[in-house]
Amino acid sequence: MIAQFNPPQRLLLGPGPSMVPQSVLDAMGLPLLGHLDPLFVGLMEEVKGMLRTVFQTTNPMTFPVSGTGSAGMEFCFVNLIEPGDEVVIGINGVFGGRMAEVAERCGATVIRVEAEWGRIIEPEQIAQALRGRSPKLVAVVHAETSTGVLTPVQEIAQIAHNAGALMLIDTVTSLGGVPVCIDEWGIDAAYSGTQKCLSCPPGLAPVTLSSRAMEVATNRRTKVQSWYLDVNLLNGYWGSDRAYHHTAPISMNYALHEALRLTLEEGLESRWLRHQENHLLLAAKLEEMEMTLTAQAGHRLPQLNSVAVPAGYDDAEIRRRLLNDFNIEIGAGLGPLKGKTMRIGLMGESSSAENVGRLVGALKAILPA
Amino acid sequence: MIAQFNPPQRLLLGPGPSMVPQSVLDAMGLPLLGHLDPLFVGLMEEVKGMLRTVFQTTNPMTFPVSGTGSAGMEFCFVNLIEPGDEVVIGINGVFGGRMAEVAERCGATVIRVEAEWGRIIEPEQIAQALRGRSPKLVAVVHAETSTGVLTPVQEIAQIAHNAGALMLIDTVTSLGGVPVCIDEWGIDAAYSGTQKCLSCPPGLAPVTLSSRAMEVATNRRTKVQSWYLDVNLLNGYWGSDRAYHHTAPISMNYALHEALRLTLEEGLESRWLRHQENHLLLAAKLEEMEMTLTAQAGHRLPQLNSVAVPAGYDDAEIRRRLLNDFNIEIGAGLGPLKGKTMRIGLMGESSSAENVGRLVGALKAILPA
Repeated sequence: MIAQFNPPQRLLLGPGPSMVPQSVLDAMGLPLLGHLDPLFVGLMEEVKGMLRTVFQTTNPMTFPVSGTGSAGMEFCFVNLIEPGDEVVIGINGVFGGRMAEVAERCGATVIRVEAEWGRIIEPEQIAQALRGRSPKLVAVVHAETSTGVLTPVQEIAQIAHNAGALMLIDTVTSLGGVPVCIDEWGIDAAYSGTQKCLSCPPGLAPVTLSSRAMEVATNRRTKVQSWYLDVNLLNGYWGSDRAYHHTAPISMNYALHEALRLTLEEGLESRWLRHQENHLLLAAKLEEMEMTLTAQAGHRLPQLNSVAVPAGYDDAEIRRRLLNDFNIEIGAGLGPLKGKTMRIGLMGESSSAENVGRLVGALKAILPA
Repeated sequence: MIAQFNPPQRLLLGPGPSMVPQSVLDAMGLPLLGHLDPLFVGLMEEVKGMLRTVFQTTNPMTFPVSGTGSAGMEFCFVNLIEPGDEVVIGINGVFGGRMAEVAERCGATVIRVEAEWGRIIEPEQIAQALRGRSPKLVAVVHAETSTGVLTPVQEIAQIAHNAGALMLIDTVTSLGGVPVCIDEWGIDAAYSGTQKCLSCPPGLAPVTLSSRAMEVATNRRTKVQSWYLDVNLLNGYWGSDRAYHHTAPISMNYALHEALRLTLEEGLESRWLRHQENHLLLAAKLEEMEMTLTAQAGHRLPQLNSVAVPAGYDDAEIRRRLLNDFNIEIGAGLGPLKGKTMRIGLMGESSSAENVGRLVGALKAILPA
């Protein structure tokens, strides 16, 4: 007979999931309601409202997709793209590459605008790619989780709109950690995840679509290739009809409700400031240890710190010791950065001076000066 | 400021979610691990193993898709179907219709084999549809949640295989409540949900693919249209490579682990028997009240009981009173059965003599003789 699972208390300082406040864990243990129960419908409305505040948008079509962040990515592409559409995608890490892959599976012609991993997508690169083109969509990763850089999406959105394109951004790692201003920046579509700076367990993907994006999604020539992610059907459930579409993950929505509540209780600006302060603290400590942050200076994410693996060390061994001897998780480098960088997440609840101290103490024990 | 959510304790006797045991709710509150943590990987292996036992299969490719039951349906179709493939689908309720819709969005040519809602798909109907045809796939709903009938899928699988087709079944409502024998019956693909007879919250979709199905999925001419649901990529994460694909819903997997553990602790046969006994108890009580079960006699699901709305009553009013005055949820009729039937679920933890007693008591108060 298999025993009950009894995980240790890890300090999660990787690229997500981040630490989850106790009241969010407690929310998942609340008694279940049916997915059409008027009280659950009330919760859905509050979740939508709080997501709008966090995304800084008035978009009615703002809700959590019943899947993880990558399902949110797929939601945006399957609804906005039809076979033959042209899409310009910025690729400076894993998630830009994933967007291109997803777009191609929707039949898009993808124009790739690439930057070295660890550097931003320069607005000028997008402007150049758009010369003589009028693609349907420009898509860029706001906060690249694989490298730790923050691309200036507001400028890019302006350039995209001037070319008549919709603007899509990946905010999986940015939402709740740095400013995400959907309406002010003119973003037409964005997706996120719950397990990063919102500090909720993984399992839902907050998304938002502007009225322009909704117009595109509702006036397609072809049906959306995914039934599960078709916004025209989802609108029946998350909109005012409350028509049954699928059974929403009830407990995960309880958790997101509580996580959003705590986010707004702290206040977005205080939360961004806290992320910034703990990032600066970590950066100072790492500098003392002669460890180098690798993301482009001036564009570093406070919530995801890519650090060069110290010369002479095996990053897998460092991570293994952190996990086994100190119960601390950090992330590996991905793709071309595998073995070269490690990723330290200070996301949501994980972002505290105490946690920086614990990590630095452990690193000092593992990497003696 | 929005208040913490504080749902009442409902008795869930609808078409799912069902009641969830306390230890499953508690499991979701356990501390999070990273999705690549060796301890989480160990849990994934245990979940896969227990799912194999519950599905009664040795299929290596047996795991929970990170979405709800409908994502499991889409997983099966997107991986097995390519544009132009012919598919025979049995339609005797909502979920057969949904399969046809999903298959068409994959570019399939769908041959619909229809039966009146509330009746089974007769094996002979499938045999007839297959005459002179060799479709790639035959798909049937094992337990139709919208009507409460159990279709004899074993016979149909035999017929499908004789025609050279793969056999796919929807086991969303059957798994854990009535026998599901993937290997013995020769089923090539099946999907389920967690929130029915497994009594776990909604959010994951257990699936299983036979080696024949895997051969089809891995030797496609075209890429799987969904990146999120591509089994070739998912195999990298849930298989032995442990390559990052997406962030699994950690807490939901904790819950499923505990729900499967409890299911196997009870034993599959005891569990099926319990569902059958409480169904017979409910049926006897309803008969005393002159209420009629509407699904085809001899093929009724013990876990989902469709009942005719008593003459002179408004079903919405009955359901509203059950919910508001007695904290009991039952389901409405769907599609052509809307307003004509109500659906009483006795699924998993919800299936008990005590719950039957509570419901019957409430119905007697609402529908005086």
